[in-house]
Amino acid sequence: MRPSGRNLDEMRPISIETGVTKHAEGSCLIRCGDTHVLCTATIEERVPPFMRNSGQGWVTAEYGMLPRSTSSRMRREATQGKQGGRTVEIQRLIGRALRAGVDRVALGERQITIDCDVIQADGGTRCASITGGWVALRLAINKLIKAGDIVTDPLISNVAAVSCGIYAGQPVLDLDYPEDSEAGVDGNFIMMANGQLIETQMSAEGATYSRAQMNELLDLAEKGVAELVAAQNAAVA
Amino acid sequence: MRPSGRNLDEMRPISIETGVTKHAEGSCLIRCGDTHVLCTATIEERVPPFMRNSGQGWVTAEYGMLPRSTSSRMRREATQGKQGGRTVEIQRLIGRALRAGVDRVALGERQITIDCDVIQADGGTRCASITGGWVALRLAINKLIKAGDIVTDPLISNVAAVSCGIYAGQPVLDLDYPEDSEAGVDGNFIMMANGQLIETQMSAEGATYSRAQMNELLDLAEKGVAELVAAQNAAVA
Amino acid sequence: MRPSGRNLDEMRPISIETGVTKHAEGSCLIRCGDTHVLCTATIEERVPPFMRNSGQGWVTAEYGMLPRSTSSRMRREATQGKQGGRTVEIQRLIGRALRAGVDRVALGERQITIDCDVIQADGGTRCASITGGWVALRLAINKLIKAGDIVTDPLISNVAAVSCGIYAGQPVLDLDYPEDSEAGVDGNFIMMANGQLIETQMSAEGATYSRAQMNELLDLAEKGVAELVAAQNAAVA
Amino acid sequence: MRPSGRNLDEMRPISIETGVTKHAEGSCLIRCGDTHVLCTATIEERVPPFMRNSGQGWVTAEYGMLPRSTSSRMRREATQGKQGGRTVEIQRLIGRALRAGVDRVALGERQITIDCDVIQADGGTRCASITGGWVALRLAINKLIKAGDIVTDPLISNVAAVSCGIYAGQPVLDLDYPEDSEAGVDGNFIMMANGQLIETQMSAEGATYSRAQMNELLDLAEKGVAELVAAQNAAVA
Amino acid sequence: MRPSGRNLDEMRPISIETGVTKHAEGSCLIRCGDTHVLCTATIEERVPPFMRNSGQGWVTAEYGMLPRSTSSRMRREATQGKQGGRTVEIQRLIGRALRAGVDRVALGERQITIDCDVIQADGGTRCASITGGWVALRLAINKLIKAGDIVTDPLISNVAAVSCGIYAGQPVLDLDYPEDSEAGVDGNFIMMANGQLIETQMSAEGATYSRAQMNELLDLAEKGVAELVAAQNAAVA
Amino acid sequence: MRPSGRNLDEMRPISIETGVTKHAEGSCLIRCGDTHVLCTATIEERVPPFMRNSGQGWVTAEYGMLPRSTSSRMRREATQGKQGGRTVEIQRLIGRALRAGVDRVALGERQITIDCDVIQADGGTRCASITGGWVALRLAINKLIKAGDIVTDPLISNVAAVSCGIYAGQPVLDLDYPEDSEAGVDGNFIMMANGQLIETQMSAEGATYSRAQMNELLDLAEKGVAELVAAQNAAVA
Repeated sequence: MRPSGRNLDEMRPISIETGVTKHAEGSCLIRCGDTHVLCTATIEERVPPFMRNSGQGWVTAEYGMLPRSTSSRMRREATQGKQGGRTVEIQRLIGRALRAGVDRVALGERQITIDCDVIQADGGTRCASITGGWVALRLAINKLIKAGDIVTDPLISNVAAVSCGIYAGQPVLDLDYPEDSEAGVDGNFIMMANGQLIETQMSAEGATYSRAQMNELLDLAEKGVAELVAAQNAAVA
Repeated sequence: MRPSGRNLDEMRPISIETGVTKHAEGSCLIRCGDTHVLCTATIEERVPPFMRNSGQGWVTAEYGMLPRSTSSRMRREATQGKQGGRTVEIQRLIGRALRAGVDRVALGERQITIDCDVIQADGGTRCASITGGWVALRLAINKLIKAGDIVTDPLISNVAAVSCGIYAGQPVLDLDYPEDSEAGVDGNFIMMANGQLIETQMSAEGATYSRAQMNELLDLAEKGVAELVAAQNAAVA
Repeated sequence: MRPSGRNLDEMRPISIETGVTKHAEGSCLIRCGDTHVLCTATIEERVPPFMRNSGQGWVTAEYGMLPRSTSSRMRREATQGKQGGRTVEIQRLIGRALRAGVDRVALGERQITIDCDVIQADGGTRCASITGGWVALRLAINKLIKAGDIVTDPLISNVAAVSCGIYAGQPVLDLDYPEDSEAGVDGNFIMMANGQLIETQMSAEGATYSRAQMNELLDLAEKGVAELVAAQNAAVA
Repeated sequence: MRPSGRNLDEMRPISIETGVTKHAEGSCLIRCGDTHVLCTATIEERVPPFMRNSGQGWVTAEYGMLPRSTSSRMRREATQGKQGGRTVEIQRLIGRALRAGVDRVALGERQITIDCDVIQADGGTRCASITGGWVALRLAINKLIKAGDIVTDPLISNVAAVSCGIYAGQPVLDLDYPEDSEAGVDGNFIMMANGQLIETQMSAEGATYSRAQMNELLDLAEKGVAELVAAQNAAVA
Repeated sequence: MRPSGRNLDEMRPISIETGVTKHAEGSCLIRCGDTHVLCTATIEERVPPFMRNSGQGWVTAEYGMLPRSTSSRMRREATQGKQGGRTVEIQRLIGRALRAGVDRVALGERQITIDCDVIQADGGTRCASITGGWVALRLAINKLIKAGDIVTDPLISNVAAVSCGIYAGQPVLDLDYPEDSEAGVDGNFIMMANGQLIETQMSAEGATYSRAQMNELLDLAEKGVAELVAAQNAAVA
Repeated sequence: MRPSGRNLDEMRPISIETGVTKHAEGSCLIRCGDTHVLCTATIEERVPPFMRNSGQGWVTAEYGMLPRSTSSRMRREATQGKQGGRTVEIQRLIGRALRAGVDRVALGERQITIDCDVIQADGGTRCASITGGWVALRLAINKLIKAGDIVTDPLISNVAAVSCGIYAGQPVLDLDYPEDSEAGVDGNFIMMANGQLIETQMSAEGATYSRAQMNELLDLAEKGVAELVAAQNAAVA
């Protein structure tokens, strides 16, 4: 029934390649099917003004899409003079999600910026950014620990995200672009390794959903996140 | 236990005053406790480019805060040269929520813009904007129906929104600012009159939540939305 | 002869409601007929760079119109990326006018910002902003005096403003929108309680005026300002 | 008593050199003492959207200062991303003033843009821009008349402007920069050749003025404008 | 003598991988040593306004750097509200260079946009962008020819670019970042396959160069471009 | 053969008038035929952040065109919200060129800004800006030397620039606008008084050039620069 022929609860193939750029303190190229996102982590020994002298660190994120990562070319945000509303929403989400998995006191007063740049898009770029962003973050923090700059590991748990939705009347896991553009209800679920929720966003345009449907999607999301966490752990091993 | 002395499942007093500006096709001033939002509806006989010749209408929203609606003065967005990320996120949410309750074919090829301007803020401004925005929308559509410009009522149902969160370890309904700034988990729930969900946003910063807790908040939200729908209906009667 | 049926030298009904927002140090909602402006005063214990270490304070103003304060909806300036020329002109005028009534040494090295936001427009918004802005300023300064932060009252006099113009060949006081849009000559007069002038702006587009006509408008303005000063005094009493 | 040694009612030397750039349809370099402004007129056979199919023309103006036209270098507005408030105010004034002297039906549906660029500033740049801008406009219109594109002369009268103020307690004509920066009251008076007023702007910061003082400045302004009109007429002869 | 141990006239290893993104009409990832640039070509059946109805096509380019393509993180241009001066200069250069190798009449009235996004930077990103951009352009045009949309091949010749400079007093080919940041003189040479020049940019900051030195660099550039052309031809074969 | 009737190796008449504005530390109006550029130098006793505490000075440049310096009116960059790509490219070039002739240690930790504003354009404005900008710089530095603020002259040599190109198949010196808009190849050559090169930019759009042709243009440029240096020296004598 799904355009890709996948089962309702089947993820796309996941691949996480680490160390893809020589400059960043942590980096990976995550591929969830045809969605490819380059994630880098940058460590800076300073925090934003509102965190100064708090003894705590900060994790933030930025998101972008290359102009031809999509089926028809998008205008480059730098030439439009600002980031669009969707971009701002997504990068705020990525930052918030990753911070939920960090002990900011253990991190110490420094900032880690996760850049997520979409090389090729086929649905689910924000979820791939969170999942891949966590890998870049993990690698950067490993470097700090190895260098003795951090004593206690500030990462509480893996953080991973997956989208689910109601497509052609059925709950499906890990929407690709053809599904995403047709789905009546569509949610993003961000979780820790133990299934605790960090963020739920589930929205309908021109439709509604019941609590029962919401629970079906959460069941799918738990399965998906477990697979993503396994892929993260394999990548950083 | 709550700073305001309310019960865990108690809403703030709701007041919806309609017809507050002579120019708009629909308007109200909604007060949810000390959160006051002015909502106006503007009808225009044109749609955005991507909807032209579709035979369907469009509903969109814009959101703003007066500089001194908050405890300390915020910079005016017009002087900063752009709307901030939070503003953009909120106005996209309001528009999406209200559109979910509209039959856009019945509306016909016209646009209704809902402006939500926060006069005084004390937590929950986005939820108050949705609830009040629906009232302004209802009044504007009544005008179109009365004038014979629309035959079938395009409003499928009321749309209302409430925030719930986990404050001091307890699930509470309708967070005010002192609660909002302390809550570990905080969600916005947008529903129709029959309790069907339109949008769920539930997030944690530096914490997580279980599915059981999510369900407790949904129970509270259902109670709150029922009260808001009653207030909407009384206001437009 | 006037669309509203008023006499040539008759003001619209004036109402000034104070204490309309709980956060601001001073606030009022001024209504001059159907023109309604919300004015708030914010005290900050810092001055702009060019005033630092001068021992003197600063009073400044910002002005905005809600998108649907007008008969047809205006684009929100925050989405246009800048304040328009008219807005900038008006807020510079408000600030300059209010400063003329302030002893900046007595104020001490602090800044008071007056925000004037037009809720509903029907002509004369800049004059209403000045008259209402002075009330917000007066209330904020009363608070500083009461708290012992200021010893000598820095307010030299009331400051109030009214528009007059030549409408259908006749000099008229306090133009409303239908008059304003038809007037060949149109002036704004800002005065102190004793009738001394702070600012005169009198302009003609596609017409001219004589010194005799200018004097007739000044006579009307003196009458109008006296009534506005009485309303200010009643409001802050 | 004046820093320049001039009499109270004495203008600075005026020089108006026409034809200073080969591209513009009309141009002059006006020198009022050490204030030098290059004024050009550009004719375009189109009008702004709000004037289309009205059968009437439009006259507009833009104003700028070269970065080092002033005693200390100002930042270039093009690098700041916008025109400042003062610039916007001034160019709106110039356009409004010049339009007051134009029969827009006789002009026909075309636009004339007057660019006023300050090469060297020493007070009174907006008045010099209006006076010189009128000369550029006159020359451009002469060209249209000569080419037979216009039959009836659309220029009703000369338009010229001068500043006056109260300096060291005395009313003085044509303020230069040292006077302007010290004057308690300062006005700009725009008139036609016959002394009819087009625009009066008279303001005080930290002071006030009486109607008697206003009349003294108007007397001076009439004298100054008469001299400017003579210089304009000599230049375009 | 060179930090990398290369001979004076030795290029870095070149690799050009084509077909790296499924959406673009042509694409490659070019690697010149540690400088990696993703180049995509987008065909659109429209031209910019200034080319309409000319019967000719247009080729243009945009350039960007991922924030962490460099040794320390650069601010994202989209968040700064504009493309920097260096970016604008480079993308104008890439477009101009590629257009020089195109018969725009044979291309027909369509536009091809080349996006060059630097994934990892180590000197010479503009040259790599031109060389890789040409490959993406070649592949996109092949597609048009194969589809029968173009009859005559509009590509006159390969276009490739290389940098040379005077490093530690010696003329060297293909500067990497450590050389680039130390070189007193530094040039970019853009050529066709036959060695004809399209663009020369050779500049010195705080130094100068003689015509003899310029000729030495041109000799090196000819050698480098020949190798790049061979790599291009191998990639598109 | 040239539209102006000049010989192939003949410059336009050069005139450099110094001291044209009373405020700047150095200034000139350079006229190369009908291209007229006003150049001013501003000395500031501070350097940009990246130069602080380096003991070295900085020279930078800004470039602008008056809206009607061209045959048809250009939009003012200040109203467009940014400097165009061409402007940015040119002002970076001017700054880089002038810095090449400066011993920045001898200059001391201060900044000199050269503003080049085109009053009338007829081709070659960037070259005229460099040549005239050097004169303004020389005058400003003379002032510093005379005042004893600088001991050793930081100017190593004159810096001057000229354009050459291939017009109608012939190499020609000092292109004017009619030639510039038709030339297949067009170069800007910046040199010191002794003929040493500072910057070469030679580009072709839709054409190419050989090394032999490049050498012919360099021969012409050497002749032109020698004449410009003589004019500079006469002007500052």
